Amino acid sequence: MRVEIWSDIACPWCYVGKARFEKALAGFAHRDEVEVVHRSFELDPGRAKGDVQPVLSMLTAKYGMSEAQAQAGEDNLGAQAAAEGLDYRTRDRDHGNTFDMHRLLHLAKERGRQDELIQILYRANFAEERSVFGEGDERLVELAVEAGLDGDEARAVLADPAAYADEVRADEREAAQLGANGVPFFVLDRAYGVSGAQPAEVFAQALSRAWGDRPALKILDEAAADACGPDGCQVPQDRPTAGKPQVSADI
Amino acid sequence: MRVEIWSDIACPWCYVGKARFEKALAGFAHRDEVEVVHRSFELDPGRAKGDVQPVLSMLTAKYGMSEAQAQAGEDNLGAQAAAEGLDYRTRDRDHGNTFDMHRLLHLAKERGRQDELIQILYRANFAEERSVFGEGDERLVELAVEAGLDGDEARAVLADPAAYADEVRADEREAAQLGANGVPFFVLDRAYGVSGAQPAEVFAQALSRAWGDRPALKILDEAAADACGPDGCQVPQDRPTAGKPQVSADI
Repeated sequence: MRVEIWSDIACPWCYVGKARFEKALAGFAHRDEVEVVHRSFELDPGRAKGDVQPVLSMLTAKYGMSEAQAQAGEDNLGAQAAAEGLDYRTRDRDHGNTFDMHRLLHLAKERGRQDELIQILYRANFAEERSVFGEGDERLVELAVEAGLDGDEARAVLADPAAYADEVRADEREAAQLGANGVPFFVLDRAYGVSGAQPAEVFAQALSRAWGDRPALKILDEAAADACGPDGCQVPQDRPTAGKPQVSADI
Repeated sequence: MRVEIWSDIACPWCYVGKARFEKALAGFAHRDEVEVVHRSFELDPGRAKGDVQPVLSMLTAKYGMSEAQAQAGEDNLGAQAAAEGLDYRTRDRDHGNTFDMHRLLHLAKERGRQDELIQILYRANFAEERSVFGEGDERLVELAVEAGLDGDEARAVLADPAAYADEVRADEREAAQLGANGVPFFVLDRAYGVSGAQPAEVFAQALSRAWGDRPALKILDEAAADACGPDGCQVPQDRPTAGKPQVSADI
């Protein structure tokens, strides 16, 4: 079974939701047969690269909240994160554009390091004092290396704005097609969707339901298969033979 | 959409079938949204590592074919391969155990190099004079490096018989559960199966059919989602609120 998770590094509920999902997955009997893929979603795609702003000042400017309201929201999110065993700095975090991080996550997917990198980016953004937005590409290269990527390769991707840009946009188009207006958004075997950082029990139920509902495979054109089995390989000149293929020995 | 291909490096029809499938995929309108995953299947799992035998002598000994029959089968397979633009040595190939290659293919999957490695292994086994079976681990390390893997990492996997062994066996169990008795076996979105090296047109039809039949997503527990969208994040203390969540601004 495959679970795709649309999320953004700048999304606190994605950080919390991932932990809740992982708790459910750890208790799922078929967890070894579940593959997790991370998909891109930007909460603030219009923000320019390098336009970095403290979270609180972004909240008050963009949504007209008072500073006390914005701080209360952060404190609440910090409490939810703590309940999942996650560090969360409720003061002095930065907000910025995450497009480059999503491009790096696509590189990491190709190199088999995606889950490592997204967890490191979340931790860097939500739990560490150093900003992931304010120090330019080298900060991201450092985090990519920590995730097991090659530093030069990560640096080259960051330096080329076109690298993996189509992949990020394709994920975002697909989120819209699937009806996701917000994140995190979990899709199980392209059959079930779960929206938001639901309690672990909801994810557990979704995993069980998606597993149980896997449809039986429909086998197309079974008759004339050129194939090899334990008793040998179908020999080419037998085709086209009506009915079941005659399996002859060839390896 | 995801296509899983069960195959064995020692399977001539897998080599030919992969080329036919790729021809169909190249002409498929949604090819950029298709992910291909290779799964393990051993045609000769009982053969010991290091038990290497010329293909013709294996065919005559195992299946009681005459040498002329065995050679005719190889010549026919060579012609089918040539029709797909593939080199195929119809003389003096070796046969042996492929378990270690499957373990390496699982490492390559984690490192994003699986398709590169399987193509290199096929070419080495079917088209090159040097044996992939007779020269021990270093020959496989060399091919792994050619596929972009780290040589030391590949060597360490080969030296540890338990590395990725469970993954290989899990693929093989899954093949049996899906009803595959031979390879290649193609599974599209876990909805459709295609058995054998079918003509490219059959793969083209299967891709179209599986694409068209993708079910609409069922969204579970939509009401109380803690999520972030372009207009901000749900604030924790709003839960549990009946009905649609009130989206408040917090990033």
